[in-house]
Amino acid sequence: MKVNIQKEDLLYAVQAVERAVSNKNTLPVLGGILITAKDGLLSFRATDLEMAMECVINGDIVEEGEVAVPGRKFAGITRLLPSANISLESMGREQLLVEYERSQMSVPCFLAEEFPALPQPEGEIQGTIPVKPFRRLVRQVSIAAANDEVRPVFTGILLEISGDKITMVATDTHRLAKGVCPWQGQGEASLIIPCRTLQEIARLAVNEEDEIVLTANRNQAYFHLGNLTFTSRVITGQYPDYKQVLPADNLFCCHSLINNQRLCNALERASLISRDVTRGKGNIVRLTFEGDKLLLAAEVPDEGTIKEELPAEIEGETLVSNYNARYLLEALKVIEDDMVCFRLTGSTTPGVIEAATEENKDYMYLVLPVRVSR
Amino acid sequence: MKVNIQKEDLLYAVQAVERAVSNKNTLPVLGGILITAKDGLLSFRATDLEMAMECVINGDIVEEGEVAVPGRKFAGITRLLPSANISLESMGREQLLVEYERSQMSVPCFLAEEFPALPQPEGEIQGTIPVKPFRRLVRQVSIAAANDEVRPVFTGILLEISGDKITMVATDTHRLAKGVCPWQGQGEASLIIPCRTLQEIARLAVNEEDEIVLTANRNQAYFHLGNLTFTSRVITGQYPDYKQVLPADNLFCCHSLINNQRLCNALERASLISRDVTRGKGNIVRLTFEGDKLLLAAEVPDEGTIKEELPAEIEGETLVSNYNARYLLEALKVIEDDMVCFRLTGSTTPGVIEAATEENKDYMYLVLPVRVSR
Repeated sequence: MKVNIQKEDLLYAVQAVERAVSNKNTLPVLGGILITAKDGLLSFRATDLEMAMECVINGDIVEEGEVAVPGRKFAGITRLLPSANISLESMGREQLLVEYERSQMSVPCFLAEEFPALPQPEGEIQGTIPVKPFRRLVRQVSIAAANDEVRPVFTGILLEISGDKITMVATDTHRLAKGVCPWQGQGEASLIIPCRTLQEIARLAVNEEDEIVLTANRNQAYFHLGNLTFTSRVITGQYPDYKQVLPADNLFCCHSLINNQRLCNALERASLISRDVTRGKGNIVRLTFEGDKLLLAAEVPDEGTIKEELPAEIEGETLVSNYNARYLLEALKVIEDDMVCFRLTGSTTPGVIEAATEENKDYMYLVLPVRVSR
Repeated sequence: MKVNIQKEDLLYAVQAVERAVSNKNTLPVLGGILITAKDGLLSFRATDLEMAMECVINGDIVEEGEVAVPGRKFAGITRLLPSANISLESMGREQLLVEYERSQMSVPCFLAEEFPALPQPEGEIQGTIPVKPFRRLVRQVSIAAANDEVRPVFTGILLEISGDKITMVATDTHRLAKGVCPWQGQGEASLIIPCRTLQEIARLAVNEEDEIVLTANRNQAYFHLGNLTFTSRVITGQYPDYKQVLPADNLFCCHSLINNQRLCNALERASLISRDVTRGKGNIVRLTFEGDKLLLAAEVPDEGTIKEELPAEIEGETLVSNYNARYLLEALKVIEDDMVCFRLTGSTTPGVIEAATEENKDYMYLVLPVRVSR
């Protein structure tokens, strides 16, 4: 393989796929980025077997071929190359020569043929999603996904594709986030996609006017965006029936309307007291919804106490409920409204946080109070 | 104690002294910030016994007194307080009540009387240093100070006060940095001041038109800057006679003039190859000064090789010498000139890096080549 490429183009392609480079050492070649030069196109590809990313750009190909460069190291080199024409030339099967200006580097590579082949995009689900609402929704829903791998389905986001919309749901069983974004295409399906894959797509989808093309079958989902392709495994397993946990409208006995930023600030101050690092306990704040105010309180022996009073519009019962402050903060930060609506079904039963304005109410965040033994 | 203070003023004072709060747990009260309200002034003070910082501001004092708040925690709280009037009131001897808007926090405190007293500034050395050259020089010299505490004098910067200037010197025995800044005052002395203290002063000296007032005796140095006072211990011990290692002018046998930024970039690329993390070896690059070019090379088995060629104006012998790339990079980054002058006395004897322009030549960086066994 021998190609000529501008530093900026090389950097764009390498940085696009770098996040899919595996961190694990089990299969060394997965620490690589496969560069393929063929038919006037340069493809850059990385995969950790859960997610694969490919970026295809035009290149001046002197000799076709492929090479599997060490991913993170090559990305580091690329960032530091001068803004000039770069020549990449494979020397034998396990060496890449990088030439620029009057200088050169040689980098040991993996055997390209050991790099896993990617499946071809195919499936009965086919359609498009506009980037802007997709990005927003992924950001809003991903906060509720679980981080630990104990129950894999909870590390994913459920995509319910039906009619002209996709409903996304995530939960770690303590809270649940749900929202919708537009969909134009065919097929009906429920797919559990790893949260991280969707976050990577959202990260690289910088042009809000673009559309993402989704192709999916039972095992794989393919997301195309311009010259980028993401291949993701679909998480197998049964997603819980989330509709069952959404409270019926008539169960809400307390409705409150609160300034988003003020509540955030108060919760962050409370976290300084209640975030009890040494004992690993969790960041509990007590909220009292009463009259025209929301009272917020926390106390931890040796750490201190806090009592805040925020103006609020409250209708319904007076309620006192304990929450993990972090769970509330994460939701408030992804709701872009100035005012938020916090509705409760009781002191120990789920509450729902939503934007106050009607057009943003397609997103909801359900959160369970924490049981406090005294 | 009871005082009223605007959040911004409180934040300024707390952040000014926060860095002197001790990280060690040996004497818990050193993790505190002592707030003293007296005679219409509010003093904030922290010390880790090596360095003490005090910030004095005006405050609305309702009741005089003092309180020793937990330093980092109180700084965290202060950052998150609303932009409003804050009331601080001691409750008994070990509790502070923080009131703001319609909210309040109580924070457990240390016993104020356990906080160590600060020595009064006194000494035969007295004078002023303009902030701008002081900041620049501290940045330029501190790179050569040692980090490890094995030989305490090398963790300090030597201040030679004499006539109308202060010469600062730092070395970790592999390299030595030296420069001068103006001084107007009385007394002659050689003081070894902890590098970290000088860096903290430089960090807080944001107004380049200000002057630092220095008062010093054999054991302590006091730096005043507006409403800030830094008290630093003077490191005891004999600083090596650095003049002995500075090569006489006639020993230089090779003079080169190189573009600073291009050399930096090349060294950073070389570091990607030569920074041999796994084997803990040190980042060695080979420089060849020859004709009208500087050749830069590094090779590490399994990591790769690099060969760069940079244009350079070279006079004198052709020399090949090995350096720790990091040592060169750190010097190049604090020299603000576009062109740098690298003069050598031989392949295995010290070289000197300086700015190319005459007015910046008051700073010099001496570096020893690395011996490479082959």
